[in-house]
Amino acid sequence: MASFSCPAPYFVVRCSTAKEGSDSSHKQRYIKLNGVNIGSVSEADFLTQSARASRTLLASVAANGCVIEEDVRLKIPTKKQLVDPHRQGLIIEGGVGYRQTVVIRSYEVGPDKTATLESVMNLLQETALNHVWMSGLLSNGFGATHGMMKNNLIWVVSRMNVEVDHYPIWGEIVEIDTWVGASGKNGMRRDWLIRSQATGHVYARGTSTWVMMNQETRRLSKIPEEVRAEISPWFIEKQAIKEDVPEKISKLDDKAKYMNSHLKPKRSDLDMNHHVNNVKYLRWMLETIPDHVLESHQLSSIVLEYRRECGSSDIVQSLCEPEEDGILRDVDKIEDNEISLLNGFSLASEIFKAGGLLGSFDKGILRYTHLLQIEGEAKNEEIVRGRTTWKKKLTNIPFPTQ
Amino acid sequence: MASFSCPAPYFVVRCSTAKEGSDSSHKQRYIKLNGVNIGSVSEADFLTQSARASRTLLASVAANGCVIEEDVRLKIPTKKQLVDPHRQGLIIEGGVGYRQTVVIRSYEVGPDKTATLESVMNLLQETALNHVWMSGLLSNGFGATHGMMKNNLIWVVSRMNVEVDHYPIWGEIVEIDTWVGASGKNGMRRDWLIRSQATGHVYARGTSTWVMMNQETRRLSKIPEEVRAEISPWFIEKQAIKEDVPEKISKLDDKAKYMNSHLKPKRSDLDMNHHVNNVKYLRWMLETIPDHVLESHQLSSIVLEYRRECGSSDIVQSLCEPEEDGILRDVDKIEDNEISLLNGFSLASEIFKAGGLLGSFDKGILRYTHLLQIEGEAKNEEIVRGRTTWKKKLTNIPFPTQ
Repeated sequence: MASFSCPAPYFVVRCSTAKEGSDSSHKQRYIKLNGVNIGSVSEADFLTQSARASRTLLASVAANGCVIEEDVRLKIPTKKQLVDPHRQGLIIEGGVGYRQTVVIRSYEVGPDKTATLESVMNLLQETALNHVWMSGLLSNGFGATHGMMKNNLIWVVSRMNVEVDHYPIWGEIVEIDTWVGASGKNGMRRDWLIRSQATGHVYARGTSTWVMMNQETRRLSKIPEEVRAEISPWFIEKQAIKEDVPEKISKLDDKAKYMNSHLKPKRSDLDMNHHVNNVKYLRWMLETIPDHVLESHQLSSIVLEYRRECGSSDIVQSLCEPEEDGILRDVDKIEDNEISLLNGFSLASEIFKAGGLLGSFDKGILRYTHLLQIEGEAKNEEIVRGRTTWKKKLTNIPFPTQ
Repeated sequence: MASFSCPAPYFVVRCSTAKEGSDSSHKQRYIKLNGVNIGSVSEADFLTQSARASRTLLASVAANGCVIEEDVRLKIPTKKQLVDPHRQGLIIEGGVGYRQTVVIRSYEVGPDKTATLESVMNLLQETALNHVWMSGLLSNGFGATHGMMKNNLIWVVSRMNVEVDHYPIWGEIVEIDTWVGASGKNGMRRDWLIRSQATGHVYARGTSTWVMMNQETRRLSKIPEEVRAEISPWFIEKQAIKEDVPEKISKLDDKAKYMNSHLKPKRSDLDMNHHVNNVKYLRWMLETIPDHVLESHQLSSIVLEYRRECGSSDIVQSLCEPEEDGILRDVDKIEDNEISLLNGFSLASEIFKAGGLLGSFDKGILRYTHLLQIEGEAKNEEIVRGRTTWKKKLTNIPFPTQ
């Protein structure tokens, strides 16, 4: 029997061998993939986490004076399961995919009664982890397989792409399918499809890219044969989103049109890995979008490129640059028969050439480039780059003011 | 067949008859119960909501060019259901109570892998609404019965009391039971029990008080006979928390030890009613608690008394006064054989007299009084008063800093 593993699709425990209290304990180390930083961790952070892991286990032992072991409470499967009635999950796709039925809960929707993007992303994370749960090879809380644990390997996410055509509403039942595939030689792709149970319509699609990292060295790793044997039988070719050449997201700088600074993570923004959770990232990104756009448009796609984790003591800056400005500027320029390579031009020009520019603009499609970075005295470190696309709402639901 | 109805246990649509654009459109009106403000609404707010309700329906009609009606997507039962496989719910207690099985999701837990209080409160809200869903008489999104709708009545919550002995962990399966009972002549009590499915241990208990309000006049209403006939067959006597004389929460003022000011709701903090959601209230309250307490203690009970809703344009202040300071001061004073009635003394003195003071202190039990209020130039308006009790964690899980 084989399995695969994938952590919460956002962040994972990263490790170091430094001794607690050493001078290097607050040093950040960066992890590179193809020359691009895809993550980092402070050494102090890892050591705190190791200590915490054992404490957490202890803390779970006693309730009302009774000894209750975590394994009794969790019953993590040690064999592949085909059905999990509690998670409403079942294995599909000839034994390798996972489908979970989910009811959109009252607190997962926004003011317009539709699920928020945050809720959608949370459900993608949840179903990915439950897929691993069903595989019977879940060895720790972050989704690594037994083979990965033996080899001191963890998954790190480098990219997410989610497209939402239609947001489910409160009380609606959706089916979320998820599966994995190869991504190059040493990566894994995880895809999702969200479908209306009532009508079968596809509401949303997602794809993500994962690589393996050695916990000790924090270096990216090839997939060891032992682990490949576990996970590769789960790989299928099917793709939720065709991305032949994933579009690169340009890096914003201080000239970005919108900027929110001095953002401080709060205790409630931290996830199990003691890093700022992905929902907080999304909020920080989306809070730079002007209110009138949020009123008239809905987010139809988001691409995230992860660079570095963000801890509780980091101060964050959220930058945002609208592309529609670029389009407008370029429209003016093209009308004036002026071709320029000013900021924002080249992409708009490509869109124009592809015949999409005026079409997009007419349809009210807006695009934004985002960057979350650590505010630092010397150099700002990138946390995540993003691109969002927005389409006009069918009806305009205004943002209420009392 | 009879049913009952209960909205999301926090906030509800409040209405007025004022015309949009009139001078009074931003006026707040307060709703009193036994002389105590328990809520208010701006007229503009209601009118926006009415308009929005119809737009929301429209907005849900078309997806991918296909007409999909909300009722097709939701399938709200028109008859009492005994089982709902999607919600994992069933009717218990001889046909009047509701039990839902819930798996604690990866994003519902905090850094220590245990469910947050926010998640617990969300699950109470969800199960309450699903209880109404099962009853077959759910007539709108906010939980009113058909009889209530006919009489233009809605539920408003006036009080919540939640006790958590033990927080479930990620992946753990819990059973949440909920049921309703009479509260005085014209109120309803809703209770909850959260139990470990694996061991049967009770992890948490909750109770809440609800009254009916006329949507038009915003006055509290008696329960009409027609509605009583719907809901009273669901009432049972059983109480999750015995509260013979619910303790009153004193009102804090600017002398409170901890104060966070200029808190601004964001778009993502709004619920379906376009008011700040309860989770945000909790966060604002708990963010005043010093970090060292959050590190060493866990919240074991919270009482909330709701006074007024908070809209997107309100600026909020969160006040917090620790009781343990009072205890410490009083211990000193008692040792000095000095009795005083200084701020914080009387309650501590009572606890002391009851033999609880040193006992509580030894056990590391801490108590705080909270107040969220609207920052106003003239008079600060209360949103919610709270009391939290904290007990020492079995192990000390430190707040990580990078």
